[in-house]
Amino acid sequence: MSEQTATEPNPPMVWDAWGVLEGHKPLSPEIRALIGGAFGISAETVSRPGEDAVRLRDSALTADQSAELAAIVGEGNVSTDHHDRLVRAGGKSTFDLLRRRSADVQDAPDAVVTPVDHDEVLALLTYCSDARIAVVPFGGGTSVVGGVDPVRGAFDAVIALDLKRLDRLSAVDVVSGTATLGAGLTGPQAEKLLGEQGLSLGHFPQSFQFASIGGFAATRSSGQASAGYGRFDDMVHHLKVATPRGTVELGRAPASAAGPDLRELFVGSEGTLGVITEVTLRVHPVSTNTAYEAWSFPDFTTGAQALRALVQVGAAPTVLRLSDEAESGVNLAMADRIGGATATGGCLAITTFEGTEAHVAARSAEAAAILAASGGTSLGADPAVAWEHGRYNAPYLRDSLLDSGVLCETLETATTWANLANLKAAVTGALTEALSAQGTPPLVLCHISHTYPTGASLYFTIICAQTADPMAQWGVTKTAACDAIIAAGGTITHHHAVGADHRKWMTDEIGDLGVEILRAVKAVVDPAGILNPGKLLP
Amino acid sequence: MSEQTATEPNPPMVWDAWGVLEGHKPLSPEIRALIGGAFGISAETVSRPGEDAVRLRDSALTADQSAELAAIVGEGNVSTDHHDRLVRAGGKSTFDLLRRRSADVQDAPDAVVTPVDHDEVLALLTYCSDARIAVVPFGGGTSVVGGVDPVRGAFDAVIALDLKRLDRLSAVDVVSGTATLGAGLTGPQAEKLLGEQGLSLGHFPQSFQFASIGGFAATRSSGQASAGYGRFDDMVHHLKVATPRGTVELGRAPASAAGPDLRELFVGSEGTLGVITEVTLRVHPVSTNTAYEAWSFPDFTTGAQALRALVQVGAAPTVLRLSDEAESGVNLAMADRIGGATATGGCLAITTFEGTEAHVAARSAEAAAILAASGGTSLGADPAVAWEHGRYNAPYLRDSLLDSGVLCETLETATTWANLANLKAAVTGALTEALSAQGTPPLVLCHISHTYPTGASLYFTIICAQTADPMAQWGVTKTAACDAIIAAGGTITHHHAVGADHRKWMTDEIGDLGVEILRAVKAVVDPAGILNPGKLLP
Repeated sequence: MSEQTATEPNPPMVWDAWGVLEGHKPLSPEIRALIGGAFGISAETVSRPGEDAVRLRDSALTADQSAELAAIVGEGNVSTDHHDRLVRAGGKSTFDLLRRRSADVQDAPDAVVTPVDHDEVLALLTYCSDARIAVVPFGGGTSVVGGVDPVRGAFDAVIALDLKRLDRLSAVDVVSGTATLGAGLTGPQAEKLLGEQGLSLGHFPQSFQFASIGGFAATRSSGQASAGYGRFDDMVHHLKVATPRGTVELGRAPASAAGPDLRELFVGSEGTLGVITEVTLRVHPVSTNTAYEAWSFPDFTTGAQALRALVQVGAAPTVLRLSDEAESGVNLAMADRIGGATATGGCLAITTFEGTEAHVAARSAEAAAILAASGGTSLGADPAVAWEHGRYNAPYLRDSLLDSGVLCETLETATTWANLANLKAAVTGALTEALSAQGTPPLVLCHISHTYPTGASLYFTIICAQTADPMAQWGVTKTAACDAIIAAGGTITHHHAVGADHRKWMTDEIGDLGVEILRAVKAVVDPAGILNPGKLLP
Repeated sequence: MSEQTATEPNPPMVWDAWGVLEGHKPLSPEIRALIGGAFGISAETVSRPGEDAVRLRDSALTADQSAELAAIVGEGNVSTDHHDRLVRAGGKSTFDLLRRRSADVQDAPDAVVTPVDHDEVLALLTYCSDARIAVVPFGGGTSVVGGVDPVRGAFDAVIALDLKRLDRLSAVDVVSGTATLGAGLTGPQAEKLLGEQGLSLGHFPQSFQFASIGGFAATRSSGQASAGYGRFDDMVHHLKVATPRGTVELGRAPASAAGPDLRELFVGSEGTLGVITEVTLRVHPVSTNTAYEAWSFPDFTTGAQALRALVQVGAAPTVLRLSDEAESGVNLAMADRIGGATATGGCLAITTFEGTEAHVAARSAEAAAILAASGGTSLGADPAVAWEHGRYNAPYLRDSLLDSGVLCETLETATTWANLANLKAAVTGALTEALSAQGTPPLVLCHISHTYPTGASLYFTIICAQTADPMAQWGVTKTAACDAIIAAGGTITHHHAVGADHRKWMTDEIGDLGVEILRAVKAVVDPAGILNPGKLLP
């Protein structure tokens, strides 16, 4: 790979698939057999066009506009290069990947701009407001909900404002356990810088390897260790946001009663209210003690009740997950072992415990007693270690499946414990019905990966044969699933965010007045409406 | 006491002091000796005028307006009675109590209106918007920041909208641990209704006996068991809010990534954005196991480090408090024993543990090991039990002091652990300087009562001799303390809210754009601007 240019994304993700090239591998014989058995298709790999073959819409940016942008960020930090534009053409949903494979002329940002600091971001937003250029803030580009689609809205041009150069750990407070991180730092970069100080953030979503600190905050990300370290929004102590109207800084204390918490407006604002440039986050010492224990439950209901007991008592592990019967059956919890012989019956749960030696000992003993009393059988540490080993691999598998005539996508929601079974059945039913009606009955797998005293998330993986028009196939299906989520009382998204794909359901989520409030806030900070058009707001 | 009328506050608080009549008692000889020694004053009790002697501004409400209000809520639920108006004339700050004792004509709401449900609140807000009548939502009336002052703003009249009749426990979900409570329920009423189902909310602020569910939510209240059960805002699962533009309902799941969390706009909105009529809250089974342990630390710094260690490791008790040397010295942590012989040297810390037997055993053992290793000496259970016994009594003591020529008030803030000593010194210095300059050097006592992984609250009690004009005396002092809080990096309020008294500092807290955002949100939901004028917004 050639040396990275200033406008190359960081890390250099594959333009039409997940992650980096090295992560991709052909489907294993076990998975091909599984697919053949389930869907009756041969699962032969189709080769994809090279990136040079993709026809992109011409950049609409004028030479004057390019020059003005370069005057703000420097010559080398504005690019209208084919590659630079293509890799910011969208996120990584199945819709995105299918669209990227199309032979039609594709859309892309008219330029990629890479500012170096908060003041340059501010200057860019002022300029773009005046020049009427839409701005899509761009972090890791891992959105699976259309959050970085190059939508122009009412404007002639759109730029991708890539935050990769805002990559500093600018302050560490070891006593308070806080660290101030640039929005453009990726998960591994942030962990590396923190690790040099003996600290860790503990935020490990599936997108960890590529997604950015600013993106985590802007989308209310939630990581696999959320039971122990909380959701990303829980970790946010202070935010610095650049808006077309100036800088907003929020968060003076660990907690406050000084009116509404405006951090909670910008966290989750998905680039529509400002560009988060810097986040001060709660961190903790790197754990030198980790205990792993996997459990088997006879069925999902029993397992869910066990997780609930654990969390409601206040004995949650650092990681706590439960796969349903279907997911446990194909061993999806361990992507590297899918279809392998180690799949157990029942439902697989994973627990890990981090912290001081005394804390891990006390907590893991308390948790084990509750899980055992709740119908669980310990499987020992191995399956939990194996899960951790393979935990970032599922998106790569989706790419290989897409190349092999299989449609694969995920979606997620959350609800109260009492409503969990109802919501799971409703969504599974809607997915199965929508796809069966198109002649492609699916496998629907599900797990709980985020737990709260009052409820939990549900994460669905859907696998089926592709029809001739997989975009339309999934479009109909996604709509049916979202309608079912709302009708069954779930939230339209627990941690994937709204983006372009969920905004149709935002009125169901927050009501007409809620939407009006968001519009009013946007009118204050982004009067020209340049920030991430077509996202979040219905 | 005569039978309670529909428009009598619930419970019937004393009009010019804290709480109910039965709670008040004369100063003990020990406290009088303490005051005599500290301030050289005799501390003779001054008798206060009866409530009939108070001259209230005449009600500005027209007969037509009264009739229109009665048409909405029924005849018996609109009152312009002297007593009913007087007991809603303000909250319970020292400013309020001093003002209430004035011989001048006093202000009060022009009427008290007591709707029975959400729809009546909606109808009242629509009517008052049209008729241009300001509305002060009224719960327990315990505000210590001027949050229920009868401010008319741009209008001719103001009503107190008392929520006491919204007193239902309308839903309980034992599986998920949630309960839906009417905004007008007081702390004890809510605990009683929940207790009948084996549940508890666990929210025990000092105002617990009188304050209401709606008030807790509207002011971001934080209770004494916040280390175990969280702040009130943490407990809010779902909110129902009546606004002049209609109903807002927020909260579909335990957590969501569906954009900004608008609950966090209404929680802490202090009646300026709507009237919270119903809150669905996280609850837990009543604990049948409580462990108590008090600790002594050689000094505040050592004690604070011990609390920090506990919280950062994830081993926080249910209650966790630390008094500084001065507060420990006068035994204020146990209001019933102030000045008594049991005061110990050093700094007193209180821990209590609730939950299942296994959880209490594991957690208290882990915590005790950390506190001992951090320089603490166990004092056994007794001082912690004594603290719990007297924990609601301090406000009564303030009344007796005020009657005896002593000024007494509290204020609070929060910051990171690293900044805690700096903030404490800055506020103590500002208070001491401002009062000494007026010839009344104070005792300044302080404790930590709310802890977080990244920091803690500081709660100050200030006691000194009154000058001839105690309103002016405290006015200058409060301003000096607030300026010092902001300059030293604290939040202007950790759990007392903003009200009228802190709004001057809101721009420091959230910036000009933050204030503009709040105004824009208010313009959406309250276009006439009738809701609680003069509060929150600077």
